Amino acid sequence: MAIAQSKVVVGYRRYLELIADLTEGKELIASGMTQEVERCRQALRRAQEGEIVALISSGDPGVYGMAGLAIELAAAEDLAMDLEIVPGVSSANAAAGRLGAPLMLDYAAISLSDLLVPWKIIRGRLEAVAAADLVVALYNPRSKKRTRQLAETAAILRKYRPGTTPVGIGTAVGTDEEQIIRTDLDHFVDEKVGMRSIVLVGNRSSRWIDGWLITPRGYRV
Amino acid sequence: MAIAQSKVVVGYRRYLELIADLTEGKELIASGMTQEVERCRQALRRAQEGEIVALISSGDPGVYGMAGLAIELAAAEDLAMDLEIVPGVSSANAAAGRLGAPLMLDYAAISLSDLLVPWKIIRGRLEAVAAADLVVALYNPRSKKRTRQLAETAAILRKYRPGTTPVGIGTAVGTDEEQIIRTDLDHFVDEKVGMRSIVLVGNRSSRWIDGWLITPRGYRV
Repeated sequence: MAIAQSKVVVGYRRYLELIADLTEGKELIASGMTQEVERCRQALRRAQEGEIVALISSGDPGVYGMAGLAIELAAAEDLAMDLEIVPGVSSANAAAGRLGAPLMLDYAAISLSDLLVPWKIIRGRLEAVAAADLVVALYNPRSKKRTRQLAETAAILRKYRPGTTPVGIGTAVGTDEEQIIRTDLDHFVDEKVGMRSIVLVGNRSSRWIDGWLITPRGYRV
Repeated sequence: MAIAQSKVVVGYRRYLELIADLTEGKELIASGMTQEVERCRQALRRAQEGEIVALISSGDPGVYGMAGLAIELAAAEDLAMDLEIVPGVSSANAAAGRLGAPLMLDYAAISLSDLLVPWKIIRGRLEAVAAADLVVALYNPRSKKRTRQLAETAAILRKYRPGTTPVGIGTAVGTDEEQIIRTDLDHFVDEKVGMRSIVLVGNRSSRWIDGWLITPRGYRV
């Protein structure tokens, strides 16, 4: 809907390809990965010129997406314009739906990317949520160059949860390349996990039921 | 889309009213609050009879919704049927979008309802995520009869974060009665917070920018 109303659509190249059916006749501004700041500036510039601009994120733009950066940049450059954040289905929720209902109880979303946040802080958060028995959704779990963090995360979680704790991995959920893997805490690090994956680690009561990953909420069934 | 394909729509009465435009000509089975188990059984029974049934949750059915219960009940009663979980925008994400981008960094979703989970466990989780400086989304923060938990939660968070920490409250987001409140850790307990509210508590780096609630991710802007 927001895309339909816009004249200019700005986004990471791959995402623009995925929504090609929605952008016919519109001006497209595509850019590469890790160019978030420049991409955002371009979108704001065009909006400042009076165009209605859609800045695309995958999933929910408010969860490790472009929403915060857009607001920060607009303020830093003192740009006056109407901003609207259109929420979406975050990739943890999309992956959870394919796997069952692992997020039915209290959970934490944690990104393993230490590009913008020191690893020491991320590690402390993992330790805290592991000890508090929260279900954990790991964003940006591993890239080709960044592999150590996922192994360390597994070690932290194993201090508090049995190796048989259910783990689900959703990769490229909602696309043609979607892949769903059902595994456990002892083995998930050896599975195919990349930057398009979400890793969902159950808490101590999560379990598999008929192939579905469930965190029971406590109803008597 | 899933609703359009179904013949029978089952849900909490208020939610069915909200989607009346999508259910014309379909069989509706409405029930009251706290009748989750019976509602779910009805939906499964009709599906077992061969109907295509949509069981409605607000937000994301996989986050404190009906998805887990449906899978558990289907397994407990040994029912063979095709189940599909259709993910949605959870209320924390919807409220976050109205307020800005508070969930841009690691966060935890915690329900303050101790109907199904002992308060002692919930309190321990609040303590852990407060200490680990996670943004916190509080689900089911307060009801008419259950008020103590929110006050205790505020006290726990204040041990680790200044009273000026930004807090946003979204109530009935996406409906005609939507209400957005911008406040802080010292004052949010005195605001209007009910069972249709989500309370978003910033971490130590969250702040207000031009009226938007932001948790900066660390980009240089």
